[in-house]
Order: sequence, then structure tokens, then C-alpha cells
Amino acid sequence: MSAIRCDQRRYRLLIAYDGTAYGGWQIQPNADSIQARIESRLRKLSGQSTCKLHGSGRTDQGVHARGQVAHVDLCTRLPPGILCRALNAGLPADIRIMQVAQAHPDFHARRSARAKEYRYFVWQHAVLPPDIQRYTLAFRRPLDREAMRSAASMFIGEQDFRSFAANPNREMLETVRRIDRFEIAGRGRRFEFRITGNGFLYKMVRSMVGFLLKVGEGTEPPQAVREILKTRERTARVPTAPPQGLFLWRVFY
Amino acid sequence: MSAIRCDQRRYRLLIAYDGTAYGGWQIQPNADSIQARIESRLRKLSGQSTCKLHGSGRTDQGVHARGQVAHVDLCTRLPPGILCRALNAGLPADIRIMQVAQAHPDFHARRSARAKEYRYFVWQHAVLPPDIQRYTLAFRRPLDREAMRSAASMFIGEQDFRSFAANPNREMLETVRRIDRFEIAGRGRRFEFRITGNGFLYKMVRSMVGFLLKVGEGTEPPQAVREILKTRERTARVPTAPPQGLFLWRVFY
Repeated sequence: MSAIRCDQRRYRLLIAYDGTAYGGWQIQPNADSIQARIESRLRKLSGQSTCKLHGSGRTDQGVHARGQVAHVDLCTRLPPGILCRALNAGLPADIRIMQVAQAHPDFHARRSARAKEYRYFVWQHAVLPPDIQRYTLAFRRPLDREAMRSAASMFIGEQDFRSFAANPNREMLETVRRIDRFEIAGRGRRFEFRITGNGFLYKMVRSMVGFLLKVGEGTEPPQAVREILKTRERTARVPTAPPQGLFLWRVFY
Repeated sequence: MSAIRCDQRRYRLLIAYDGTAYGGWQIQPNADSIQARIESRLRKLSGQSTCKLHGSGRTDQGVHARGQVAHVDLCTRLPPGILCRALNAGLPADIRIMQVAQAHPDFHARRSARAKEYRYFVWQHAVLPPDIQRYTLAFRRPLDREAMRSAASMFIGEQDFRSFAANPNREMLETVRRIDRFEIAGRGRRFEFRITGNGFLYKMVRSMVGFLLKVGEGTEPPQAVREILKTRERTARVPTAPPQGLFLWRVFY
């Protein structure tokens, strides 16, 4: 039987998820993924045998999202609001479609993205309150926020971030990225890093945060950021912060 | 066998919990409670057959806490830090002892409390992101925050709150309380009510918040707060907001 042709429409999805139970955003052989869950739901609702969901980018195992964006082409004539509710009705509670909109056929979740914002949440105490347990790094030792701010400012600008990427061999070709903002916000025990940039290398946010925590506890001086950026080589001097504090917060188009 | 006598010490506990799975703070016949879980753990650790845990006050079914305070008398000589870790090791993940301190024998979690702060979280959209799903009220219709601020300010001061208490018969004797602060904080879709006062009647916070939401969506004018306070009678005009957005945030001594 030949495939039934139809007029496809492009839909843009705004997605929030708790990444704790998943191997990551992307479909992978041996783990559950957010992409696989949503694609399966899209196939069921559209009746199409394949529904390729294009995300703005991957998030790793255990990383969360408030504002992941993805696009998909569907034959359905369902209005976006109805499609949104129908998707949520069959998705697990830790994945929510926040919004569906019809998009221009040229819109591409990854290629059209101009910038992304990540947030990384830290709690300055050994014990985490239950409501933020899965979404926050507990850091017991005192952290000098001014020293971290000073170090964070050195990440800003267009620079080669090779020494703050994990597994740099995967990123050999192009390791220059532009960081537009790197702020530390929050009062009391809970604070957050807010990082906006035009692109991020593999584990780059967690590597920058991991190093800032070393600066905060005084084992590295703020100016070491500049020095390490210059080396263009990833070493054990830069640790990778754990995934649970990290959210893909927003994608800018 | 006669009871073994010992020198008791008073301990003060700072407690955070996710109230979703419990019938409330207080021990009750047909439901699990936070108090019962902690008392059971205290009995096990102290070897005492009874360990009465005195909370600063009750929280209802589904209400959470970041800063509940309780005291207990124990024969143990365990240092507070060790006791804290030992308690957490045997408690479910949705109850965390944030801190244990030795307290003066005169300290009483309820009677020594000077004021309490509650926070109530609202998300202005039909769909809740998974990370705040259990801790936030989703409110789809637009809310006029300025109108709510104006109405909230009318709760401030020492007044008779009988018309904003549920089941007022249980509170016949004394329904005058003092509200010190009633603020609306937050940007974008998520905002919170922050309420500090010297005491709260049964379901008083949720009743005040429920009415402010009516003011916010325009079905009641802000000045109605003053009018309803004067009636000293609870009617259906004042709805009770759902429990999941509410946190006992802090107790002041």
C-alpha cells in the first residue's frame, strides 16, 4: 500500500520536564527518553507511522527543562490548543507540553534558535527541602558569591570554550561560542546561576558551574577562568557539576 | 518493671516536608501524618516508649512546609548534628529534618512562637511545569496583581478574622489575629503570596488567598475585604484556595 499523502503543518512545542527518570532528551538504545515519549504520543494522535520531533538541542541524563522547544510536521488538522491537551493526556506527569503553536514551514527548533538560557540551582546546606530535592544541588561548604560573580564575568563574550567542554574530541571543529549573560541570583540559602549564550558545547554549562563552585569555596582564584580558557585543553582542574541542578530554561528565536 | 529515669534534654527541630502524601501534620486515626512518622523515628533512636513531638501548629492535608518547628524531650546524649542525620536516615524522602538544636527547657514550639510566615505559590497558566506541579496552584485566568495588592493590604493589622476562617465554630472564643505583612512577589507566570502574622485561624491563609484570587480576576472589588471582615461571618463568598500551593515557610521566636 502506498503512503497516504497529506498536507503537513509544522507545529512548535514548548516543553517542560523533570529529567530524573530519563536517559536524556534524545532517543537512545538503552534508556527511556523525553523525545521517544513525545514522539510515541504524536504517532498515536496523528496516525502517522513516523513523527520526527526536532528539539532545540539535547539535554543530558538527569537534566531538566522549563522551556525546551521542538518542532514536528503533522498531517493533523487539530487546532494547537486541542493538540496540546491531547498530548498531555497521554504523557507521564514528568513531561508537560506547555504550549503548541502552528509554525512557519521554515521554522526549525535547532537551526532557528538564536540563543539559549540555562539555570543551575544551588542550595547552601547539607539537607535539601523535599520540594526542591530533585532540582537543586546541595552544597554544604560556604561559597563566596562575589568571587563567583567575578569569575563568571570572565566567561562573557565570544571565546573558545574547549577547556570547559567534556569529551572535546566530539567538538573538534568549532569550539568558539558567545556567552551573553552569566549572573548569580537569589537570596539566602538558595541561589541560581543564569547563563545565556548563542550555543553550548557538550557539558559546557555544568563544567563552567563546576569550576565556579571551586572558585566559590576558595580552591581556585577567579582569574583562573581566563587562564584556563587560554589553554584550550580540558583537564581535571575543571569538574563537571552534577546534572540535577540544571534546567534548560528558555530558547530564544 | 519500673521506668528507667534519665535526664531529659529538649531538642528543637526545623522540619521541611512535601505534604502531598499525608493527612496533615498532626497524628490522626485514619491517615498517615508527618508527626507520626517523626515520632516513630524518635522512639526508635531514643529507645523511649513515648516521644511526644510538639509542633508550632498544624498544617492541613496537602499543605507543605519549609520551616515547621517542633520540640521534643529525649534522654539521648546524641549531639544534635548526629541526631539530625540519624533521623533523616530513617525518614521518607518527603520529610526532611533540616536542623536539630538543643533548646532551653522553657522553649515551646507552639507557645514560644511570636509569628509565622506562610507562602502560597500560583502559576498563571493552564499547564504546570513538572518541577512545581505538586507545590503550586495553576490559575489559568488573568489576575490583576495591583488589585490583589490593594486588597491584601486591608488584611494588615489586628482584626477579627472570623469571616476568613473555615468552620468558625471551632474558633468561637478568640478570632482576633494580627497580620504584619501580606505581599505579592514574583515575576512572570509564577508569583507568591507572603503572609506574616502572629497567629492564624483554621484555613485562614487559604481563605484570604481564595478571596484575593476572586479580586484578581475581577469578580470582587478590593474594598470588599474590609466589608467582609466587618460582617464577622463566613459565607460562600469567601472560597478556600486548594492546599497544594501553601507552605508554612518560617516560624519566628
